[in-house]
Amino acid sequence: MQSQGALDSLFSPKSIAVIGASNRQGSVGRAAFSNILLNEYTGTVYPVNPKEHSISGVRAYPSVLDLPETIDLAVVIVPAPVVPSVVEESGKKGAKGLVIISAGFKEVGIDGAQLERQVLSIAQKYSMRIIGPNCLGIINTDPDVRLNASFASGMPVEGSIAFASQSGALGEAVLDYASGENIGFSKFISMGNKADVNENDILEYLREDTKTKVILLYIEDIVDGRKFVDTVSRVTQEKPIIAVKAGVSPEGAKAASSHTGALAGSDEAYNAILKQSGVIRVESIIDLFDYARAFAKQPLPKGNRVAIITNGGGPGIMATDASVRYGLQIAQFSDATKNKLRSGLPKEASVNNPIDLVGDAQADRYELALEALNDENVDCGLALLTPQAMVDLKKVAETIASIGPKSGKTILASLLGLGDVTPAVGVLESNGVPNYSFPESAVRALAAMSEYKQWIDRPRTEVKHFDVDLVRAQKIIAHAKQAGLTNLSQTDAMGVLNAYGLPAIKTEFAKTRRQAVDLAKKIGLPVAMKIVSPDVVHKTDIGAVKLDLNSEQDVAGAFDEILKNVKVNAPNARIDGVLLQNYVTGGTETIIGIHRDPKFGPLLMFGLGGIYVEAYRDVSFRLAPIRELSAHNMIQQIRGGKILQGFRGQPPRDLEAIAECIERLSQLAMELEDVQELDVNPLLAFEKGCKAVDARVIVSSPLQNHTSSTPGNRP
Amino acid sequence: MQSQGALDSLFSPKSIAVIGASNRQGSVGRAAFSNILLNEYTGTVYPVNPKEHSISGVRAYPSVLDLPETIDLAVVIVPAPVVPSVVEESGKKGAKGLVIISAGFKEVGIDGAQLERQVLSIAQKYSMRIIGPNCLGIINTDPDVRLNASFASGMPVEGSIAFASQSGALGEAVLDYASGENIGFSKFISMGNKADVNENDILEYLREDTKTKVILLYIEDIVDGRKFVDTVSRVTQEKPIIAVKAGVSPEGAKAASSHTGALAGSDEAYNAILKQSGVIRVESIIDLFDYARAFAKQPLPKGNRVAIITNGGGPGIMATDASVRYGLQIAQFSDATKNKLRSGLPKEASVNNPIDLVGDAQADRYELALEALNDENVDCGLALLTPQAMVDLKKVAETIASIGPKSGKTILASLLGLGDVTPAVGVLESNGVPNYSFPESAVRALAAMSEYKQWIDRPRTEVKHFDVDLVRAQKIIAHAKQAGLTNLSQTDAMGVLNAYGLPAIKTEFAKTRRQAVDLAKKIGLPVAMKIVSPDVVHKTDIGAVKLDLNSEQDVAGAFDEILKNVKVNAPNARIDGVLLQNYVTGGTETIIGIHRDPKFGPLLMFGLGGIYVEAYRDVSFRLAPIRELSAHNMIQQIRGGKILQGFRGQPPRDLEAIAECIERLSQLAMELEDVQELDVNPLLAFEKGCKAVDARVIVSSPLQNHTSSTPGNRP
Repeated sequence: MQSQGALDSLFSPKSIAVIGASNRQGSVGRAAFSNILLNEYTGTVYPVNPKEHSISGVRAYPSVLDLPETIDLAVVIVPAPVVPSVVEESGKKGAKGLVIISAGFKEVGIDGAQLERQVLSIAQKYSMRIIGPNCLGIINTDPDVRLNASFASGMPVEGSIAFASQSGALGEAVLDYASGENIGFSKFISMGNKADVNENDILEYLREDTKTKVILLYIEDIVDGRKFVDTVSRVTQEKPIIAVKAGVSPEGAKAASSHTGALAGSDEAYNAILKQSGVIRVESIIDLFDYARAFAKQPLPKGNRVAIITNGGGPGIMATDASVRYGLQIAQFSDATKNKLRSGLPKEASVNNPIDLVGDAQADRYELALEALNDENVDCGLALLTPQAMVDLKKVAETIASIGPKSGKTILASLLGLGDVTPAVGVLESNGVPNYSFPESAVRALAAMSEYKQWIDRPRTEVKHFDVDLVRAQKIIAHAKQAGLTNLSQTDAMGVLNAYGLPAIKTEFAKTRRQAVDLAKKIGLPVAMKIVSPDVVHKTDIGAVKLDLNSEQDVAGAFDEILKNVKVNAPNARIDGVLLQNYVTGGTETIIGIHRDPKFGPLLMFGLGGIYVEAYRDVSFRLAPIRELSAHNMIQQIRGGKILQGFRGQPPRDLEAIAECIERLSQLAMELEDVQELDVNPLLAFEKGCKAVDARVIVSSPLQNHTSSTPGNRP
Repeated sequence: MQSQGALDSLFSPKSIAVIGASNRQGSVGRAAFSNILLNEYTGTVYPVNPKEHSISGVRAYPSVLDLPETIDLAVVIVPAPVVPSVVEESGKKGAKGLVIISAGFKEVGIDGAQLERQVLSIAQKYSMRIIGPNCLGIINTDPDVRLNASFASGMPVEGSIAFASQSGALGEAVLDYASGENIGFSKFISMGNKADVNENDILEYLREDTKTKVILLYIEDIVDGRKFVDTVSRVTQEKPIIAVKAGVSPEGAKAASSHTGALAGSDEAYNAILKQSGVIRVESIIDLFDYARAFAKQPLPKGNRVAIITNGGGPGIMATDASVRYGLQIAQFSDATKNKLRSGLPKEASVNNPIDLVGDAQADRYELALEALNDENVDCGLALLTPQAMVDLKKVAETIASIGPKSGKTILASLLGLGDVTPAVGVLESNGVPNYSFPESAVRALAAMSEYKQWIDRPRTEVKHFDVDLVRAQKIIAHAKQAGLTNLSQTDAMGVLNAYGLPAIKTEFAKTRRQAVDLAKKIGLPVAMKIVSPDVVHKTDIGAVKLDLNSEQDVAGAFDEILKNVKVNAPNARIDGVLLQNYVTGGTETIIGIHRDPKFGPLLMFGLGGIYVEAYRDVSFRLAPIRELSAHNMIQQIRGGKILQGFRGQPPRDLEAIAECIERLSQLAMELEDVQELDVNPLLAFEKGCKAVDARVIVSSPLQNHTSSTPGNRP
């Protein structure tokens, strides 16, 4: 792989030029050069500076071209306008990688962006890959390399966590925090402007990096949405990705023509996409590391059943509360386990879960209690210990660290507090049992691990393909576009659904009473009738809707009455005609829809319908194309999902049928690229089957080429 | 106040006996005595131990009675069976307070509980107040007292935070954590079994304690629910209470006969009660202290508009995300402020909010940016600083600490990271500007302060009193009870609502066709009719409901048809008759109800009705009696509240009318103590007014005395 090799020259170069290395105190050029020189880099580093004879005691060269050998990597710290020429020279000198720390590019405006493109094109000429510009740099703690090509202060210890950050400032803070907590890194990457190497390249690289077990991401935007989804989906099969996606839009949803569009705010899309790809999304840096420590040091739990061991009631209760809150199950011990515990523990102890060893518990009681991890009903363990004057904390920690992992199950610890417990915490951490100051953080980490395991183990299903009438759907849309429409008529919208095998109820448009009666017979009685007018919004309120019409006379009478009511109540309304539909009652209102996201492509939505859909925003999203199981997950995932599953004495709804509708919609989204937004609202779900009662289809405007269409372009 | 004085003798005694003081290494008796002796206690402490001549070098006495003077406080560490006698002796020796550390009481079972009652009755004979038994002890850092009457390890530094904990183990951990973070306490109280002094007494004491500015609570249960509500409501007017309520029931709601009962799980009740009383409920100990540090050191913000100052883009974005998430508003600066900032900051800086000073910002830029706090559109500030090699962190911290507070507005800081920033953090903390390792925690603390301020400043309204027909309601209930019913018939339930002026739609019960027609005329057409049968659940499905009956013939026909349908479709169903009601259409379904909580008394509930009420659990609770504004808040507080406020083109619903229904229900709950549970479901809300369509009233069973009735007793 060409790109992989190129990233190797970035992270594991044999020789480096630091262009813009400096002796000036407090300068970036000095920090970057010293960081390479003073952190036991295993290759050769050359300072390049035309004005100095030596930098930090090392012979300096006026230009890269003057170096005594070719270089693998150039670290660039010169002012932006000079960057193109030094990049050109680096290329000539054989460099395959560039870490451009210099700022003054895309982030400062149009001229900077132009300069950035220029630099990129020079680099591409020489097949050089670029990290940055406008970044903090990169770090590789691999003992074979030991490269700190950054101006961060300090070198992190070696570990198995990789961190890639779009924000240099945050990267610096994170390195500082990690050094305070003694957290080890495999790689650190500040991505800067992402002129060339972006999160997708980095993730691919880290997937193959044997030193990395857990990948942490801080991102504000994504360069290539579709590729990102492909990449993370592949990476998360092998290594967990824990991500902070910052820059949540404060406005939430944008103005949009459909329900689906209104609900698919950018953050919802990100949430759906990250979830769908197995990424663990967190909201704070502390969570990022709380989770990472657990993933890096402990095996994944097989399930979500936790055993809690404590020497104090309060912390046990708090751990239980948190377990329930974050989706862990309090394990039910077997009788054998309970008997074993009971035989060795004092009478005041509790042998149920949480196992309460009572305040004066020493290491021997912990040793016995840790036996519970071997119970087949237990997937993971949490050992709690509150400092007590009489308890040998360090010895308890040693016991947890030595006995716990023997079970092969996940074990985390919470030695509560900060001061007294520090030496004991050291024992745990250095033996691979992550510790948390309070139980809640440990529980959340366990819950994240258990969720990730579930994701890894999920059954894989395929994307189904349905025989549909693609040509008919295309014709309807083409016809509407020729007529200059972007919002399909109701009959056309239902026609498109029909062509895709979605269970659209029969819908006809009539202009005259005669037509209405004929079409009603064609549809089959009973029918419902409503006015079609661009000017009437609340149709029911003015008597412009008639339901349950059972005979020709009823239909004829309803036609007259509707027209009369509209004339009386909305005298200026334009009247196009009436819509006739099969009259359907009962069923549960759901909504399914498509929203074409400019970055990620077609998003599918599912939710409960009616006025609740927007009030509760209780909807689920997935990128199309969707696999069979994923369609079912969309249905189960919403908070109100139980309403469909036989709730309060109601019969369960036909989830298979809904899932198939979502899958057909997925195929529609992939094949009809003109469809920008689509709502089926309501899709009525019954005990058997479902019915699409109403649909709204927004197509790209006649002037739009569908590949460039974005929601912003819509009228 | 008698009780207040007695607590004074607990917290500020002049002389203390430590009964059970010991020289044995690692014993509680040794730890407790040394903690008093070695932490500069300003009074006189006597060890009592019949077997030793001296304890820790201090002359010991065989019994309290042998002491050379009377004592104010006895700290008791002797084995449980000996406790009654030493308590008796302490009383004789003049003690007014007891801290009973000894375990072996209520927590070990019936015998222990008996012993505990015995101890309490001896104490009461001598007007002694008891903390404990089975507790860690108490601490008072007041320099006039300096009392550490606990066996905790170490003495916390002086501060203005009081912490009362129901869990001793957690108390110990918290003291340890606080010492690691250098957090100061005014008082620390381990409440233990709460045989006498409980959270209510402690809160009253802390309210008057001039050394305490913020009260932290860890509670698992509450001794006296009604009194707790009264007490906290009073205390939170003066001082913030931040509480962890642990022991959330994993099962959630219990089985109950009504929707309201099913939704009013104990945790929901606690949530409602804490919120209603102005208590800030948090879920973790870290939050407890993150919030407490801000409340203790900074003034409350006038509103929720925050100014964010940063030297890095990423942290600024994360702070903005968190602000939006937790309900702060990103302040809009005035033009004057923007001009001032623009004139002094470099071009790359952003003068909008967040103010981005760019990575190389030194103290001078922070000084200028802090001017934004003086903008009248700003209520509070958050200063972010990421470590940068070239930046003098300590000087920036000094600037934030000296300039920030001058504005008189709330200011918190986040010097990101842990290691490098420690000295700068010290500068901030020692100058009263709380610091947080990452912006999110600071934002949450600001949001909690702003919410508390809003609560303090809320307009006060009264509990309205309505003229109702109490006698009629009582008669209906008495009549039902005499008939052995606990579940009122629909007509009786509607009768009770009617008596309380709730807008019950006209409802009549008919046994014959003739009666049905007569009653339909009495009610007024159109009417709806449905079967009354204990055996028919899904009435609509078998054709046992008829709507919109517009004439006598319609009514008579519907009667026959319903009976026929039931006979055909449910041949074994018992038929009582039919129910006739005004036929009402439109409106938004809501639900209001009463649930009599065994601990807190009548809880009122409001939510959106239909199948959604239980699926989303989107309901609000308040204790009755309810004030006018509180009834409105109940309506606005639910997530789906906007459905009522003119959503998606629908007219807004009559919130005044709904609020009045809630207030009338509140009066009903207070006056009719026999009513255990009550649902009005649906209460249809219209543009003008609302209508109670269906009601369920559960009264205490004939054998129950209403004062002792609990949900558990119900059939």
